[in-house]
Amino acid sequence: MGSIAVESSASSPAHHARLLSRQNHITNTAGLAPGYLQANLLILPSKHAQDFHNLCLRNPVSCPLLGITLNGDPHSVRPKGCIKSADFDIRTDFPAYRVYKNGKFVKNRRDLTDVWTSDYVGFLIGCSFSFEDALAAAGLQPRHQKTGTIVAMYRSNIPLLPAGVFTGGKCIVSMRPYKPEDIERVREVTRPFLSTHGEPVAWGWDGAKELGIENIGSPDFGEPQVFEDGEIPVFWACGVTPQMAVESAGDKLDGLVFSHEPGNMLVTDWTIDDLERLKGSI
Amino acid sequence: MGSIAVESSASSPAHHARLLSRQNHITNTAGLAPGYLQANLLILPSKHAQDFHNLCLRNPVSCPLLGITLNGDPHSVRPKGCIKSADFDIRTDFPAYRVYKNGKFVKNRRDLTDVWTSDYVGFLIGCSFSFEDALAAAGLQPRHQKTGTIVAMYRSNIPLLPAGVFTGGKCIVSMRPYKPEDIERVREVTRPFLSTHGEPVAWGWDGAKELGIENIGSPDFGEPQVFEDGEIPVFWACGVTPQMAVESAGDKLDGLVFSHEPGNMLVTDWTIDDLERLKGSI
Repeated sequence: MGSIAVESSASSPAHHARLLSRQNHITNTAGLAPGYLQANLLILPSKHAQDFHNLCLRNPVSCPLLGITLNGDPHSVRPKGCIKSADFDIRTDFPAYRVYKNGKFVKNRRDLTDVWTSDYVGFLIGCSFSFEDALAAAGLQPRHQKTGTIVAMYRSNIPLLPAGVFTGGKCIVSMRPYKPEDIERVREVTRPFLSTHGEPVAWGWDGAKELGIENIGSPDFGEPQVFEDGEIPVFWACGVTPQMAVESAGDKLDGLVFSHEPGNMLVTDWTIDDLERLKGSI
Repeated sequence: MGSIAVESSASSPAHHARLLSRQNHITNTAGLAPGYLQANLLILPSKHAQDFHNLCLRNPVSCPLLGITLNGDPHSVRPKGCIKSADFDIRTDFPAYRVYKNGKFVKNRRDLTDVWTSDYVGFLIGCSFSFEDALAAAGLQPRHQKTGTIVAMYRSNIPLLPAGVFTGGKCIVSMRPYKPEDIERVREVTRPFLSTHGEPVAWGWDGAKELGIENIGSPDFGEPQVFEDGEIPVFWACGVTPQMAVESAGDKLDGLVFSHEPGNMLVTDWTIDDLERLKGSI
């Protein structure tokens, strides 16, 4: 049926995943097309694009850039390696989207075909799904994968360094419990993933306190995680941060802003072999 | 005499400034070779170089990379545009250096010729001198330039996001007083200087409080600045931060580490026209 037709025309597992997402066959991209980097999304009117671009460049741990649309074209992304299939549409190839007005969430949408104009710029931002595969492969599977829950996320007091209209934001962090003796290994495994949040930003109960997180059992997003004996929290920067930056900018933002629906990412054509070249120019 | 000999062999104003520094004719590079970007320095043993490189890539506002030495050669820096003269020596072309052992400052040196080995990697890091020229040109001359003092610097509570052995560091910020009605213009003028700290990280008395700065009259480094009627503090990330990262890493660092002496920068061949291409690869 649908999935067979999709399979035959796809140029890669990533392209296949994008086609499934376009046809709304899936509602969660976790585990899809292993080895390919998945991306968060933010789409802004061009008048705010430069400020948001600067925000990403100034805060690459929480907002690591994987690609940007080109010349208002929903089918073109630079750099070229990000999306290799000619058949691509940023307005449909995420399973689900969110709409924001004046920094406030308004509603969900299945696609953005009728609201996109050539004045919009889309930003693809690295996602922690990428390093979770590596943790699992190293025998350090994240707890939420084992328990089938959504990772716990918290508002931290790490400032999002301001850029233009984007002021007053804070980093969102995701949390995975680990044993103290595994921390250095966990840091090592996730360290190369600089473009998808990289190594943890803090760990341990002191780390939680430094981030301003008082009640680990009450995450601001996602679900509480079960701690086993002696485990401590380990925190990574989280791709929900750009959405918080939009909320902080509030009515300084003219026009509608769009994001992906959390968990419903874009599977890009970047692979873990591209991590080194995505690190930065110097 | 010396300066005439220097002048005749220099290939550019930047090269001329480096030759003056090499011959220890100057002790402060402020105002030297206007339009050329100046650089802070950190030199580490190769075993710590990858961690420090990651630290810079994760914290580009306080540690913006302008160049890195190539293959242990003190005469070669990548990318090529950073130093264009064949005649270059990172061990001598800063006016003065500092030596650190186990993260602690040990002593000053005029040059590093006898202590450099091919195991060392040198990092050139953007400096606020670059945007201060632009502020002055826009009629917003920083107070410390007018009063002939050293800019006030403070330890802030902005975490330096960890990378390998570099954990527990905080950002150092520099402070310049401005009138509230000039803040947006000050932000605009310094915004393009992404590779030399860029726009402010915080401003106003609330901003000072958020950074954990309680007594503006007692900077941790530099000199207190005079506030005129109604002025508020404006804070930028500061290139002293990498030295604080070294202090935080402490005895996790094997071997000697070297930095420049504050105020005694390297004049690079990058100019303000290169700022756009230094921003990042995406």
